[in-house]
Amino acid sequence: MSTGAMHPSDQGKLAQMIALDWGTSSLRAYLLGDKGCVLAQVTTSYGIQHLPLPGGRLGFELAFKTVAGAWLDLCPNLPIVACGMVGSKHGWCEVPYVNCPVDLRALVKETRHVDTGLGCKLWIVPGARCEPIDGPPDVMRGEETQIIGALLQQPQLNAGVTFVLPGTHSKWASIRNGELINFQTYMTGELYAILREHSTLGRLMPLSNNDDEDTAQIKLVGFRAGLNAARTNPNSALSQQLFGVRTLALTDKLLPQAVPEYLSGLLIGYELLAGATDSESPLVLAGDAVLCQRYSLASSYLGIKVHAILDNTGTKGLWAFACASKLFQN
Amino acid sequence: MSTGAMHPSDQGKLAQMIALDWGTSSLRAYLLGDKGCVLAQVTTSYGIQHLPLPGGRLGFELAFKTVAGAWLDLCPNLPIVACGMVGSKHGWCEVPYVNCPVDLRALVKETRHVDTGLGCKLWIVPGARCEPIDGPPDVMRGEETQIIGALLQQPQLNAGVTFVLPGTHSKWASIRNGELINFQTYMTGELYAILREHSTLGRLMPLSNNDDEDTAQIKLVGFRAGLNAARTNPNSALSQQLFGVRTLALTDKLLPQAVPEYLSGLLIGYELLAGATDSESPLVLAGDAVLCQRYSLASSYLGIKVHAILDNTGTKGLWAFACASKLFQN
Repeated sequence: MSTGAMHPSDQGKLAQMIALDWGTSSLRAYLLGDKGCVLAQVTTSYGIQHLPLPGGRLGFELAFKTVAGAWLDLCPNLPIVACGMVGSKHGWCEVPYVNCPVDLRALVKETRHVDTGLGCKLWIVPGARCEPIDGPPDVMRGEETQIIGALLQQPQLNAGVTFVLPGTHSKWASIRNGELINFQTYMTGELYAILREHSTLGRLMPLSNNDDEDTAQIKLVGFRAGLNAARTNPNSALSQQLFGVRTLALTDKLLPQAVPEYLSGLLIGYELLAGATDSESPLVLAGDAVLCQRYSLASSYLGIKVHAILDNTGTKGLWAFACASKLFQN
Repeated sequence: MSTGAMHPSDQGKLAQMIALDWGTSSLRAYLLGDKGCVLAQVTTSYGIQHLPLPGGRLGFELAFKTVAGAWLDLCPNLPIVACGMVGSKHGWCEVPYVNCPVDLRALVKETRHVDTGLGCKLWIVPGARCEPIDGPPDVMRGEETQIIGALLQQPQLNAGVTFVLPGTHSKWASIRNGELINFQTYMTGELYAILREHSTLGRLMPLSNNDDEDTAQIKLVGFRAGLNAARTNPNSALSQQLFGVRTLALTDKLLPQAVPEYLSGLLIGYELLAGATDSESPLVLAGDAVLCQRYSLASSYLGIKVHAILDNTGTKGLWAFACASKLFQN
């Protein structure tokens, strides 16, 4: 779906670059103007695992042409930058992770490009990797670009901040002196999805979703109850607390509409409580607006201070990357 | 599949009762002789969610006839006792939970029966329920019978013990003075199954299962590494540790054959460490022999003392229940 109220020929005059957020399950393309403002955008389901042609270069080329072909017809020489899983082992071109500490310059240095098949290059931002002493390594692809964008938008955060980027795999990323020094991933979103879809807990949840006022109130009560369970027993095993979702529903202490919200509150509560304990810097939420609101509500209920909530800063990050890579002719 | 080396007519002479362990996904039937010894057994997939005819009395009757019909032809007057989900809301007949503290006498008092359609009654053992002050209620169906059997088999455990019954929904059950005083459920087995089958972690695991010696060694190393991760960071969120499974595999620090074992070690480790912290009594493992071995290995690696490992004691429990219910004519 393409959005953008501006007439294509005006877009063409103002366009400065094409920015792609290319993940596992979706491909978002943006036509950016001055200072990275969004002139037009297209969202498709052509994530790297759902290409229009499976397996290989042609699938990537076709997906790229679908989202960016018309823009390139208007302005053939636009710089093009992508971030996300498109740079992974199963992406268009593997761009190795850059080890922490990482800043924009380090990412630019390790960038790689592919030929799009349309007579222009596509540059891919590398992902980041950290190696904690006492645990497994951790990796990100795409979030490093969101972080770059957030730091561009709010330069005072360079001094020291912990970004919380909620999602399928939530990231908690520590910034100090303008560098990403380490980060942790929580599988909160994925756990929620598979528990809802495939577990015995899912069977207790309603199939349809009412959005009337009463239901909204019931959901809020459920969400808070889940957060409360996480707070009351932060050290008990999650696998035990999860069974509580089942017994509360079976004993009618939780209405069906509240069950998914309780589960969400429980999982987000565990993430926030563990993350906030580990973090010394102010917390800043960034990324998907709906998820950020949910995390903000949860933080406030749990008494965890959130310093700021930023929009999706991915396009800002891709703009900063293009600038630092000197991809603009002027 | 029916097993039992004895000739049917001999079974008929020795048979004292029919015992059923009737769960969600399987129905196990036993022909018991003197003191509850097993003369013959049949295992089918006719769990209450997989009846030969869906939804209702006829499905239960047909499943029952399939497993026990031939035995009843030989000995029409055998007492018949069942435990497990057959007594749940979606079972043959709902038998309400008995609240903790619970002992054999309390269970017998609340038993109910159904007409099998074959001219005899089937008695159903109630499940147990506890209501902790600081958390959701907890419930069991079937494990109470295993516990009764274990206490019959090892009467000295009546004084005080914590039974660990590993499974899809592992139970940690505290016994004091012959009573089940409370218990906790961990969704360890179910979490393992859905993460393996439906998550991004599952995609990193091998499809086929080699059982040669090298693979066995790789698996053991993976299992121990998972246990170690649980021990090293017992307070970090499980959803974070789970992402470590992914990064260890992606960075080749974990061989594909070791990935499922690492996940198993991580989940069992979390359960054992949380359970052992909460428990003051000696731990006794009971139930499925393969799972008990796995938990025993894990406990030993984590330095958690296990007092004893018992066989599956369910048939002993059903025997004790029949005795206490005075179902025998002699």
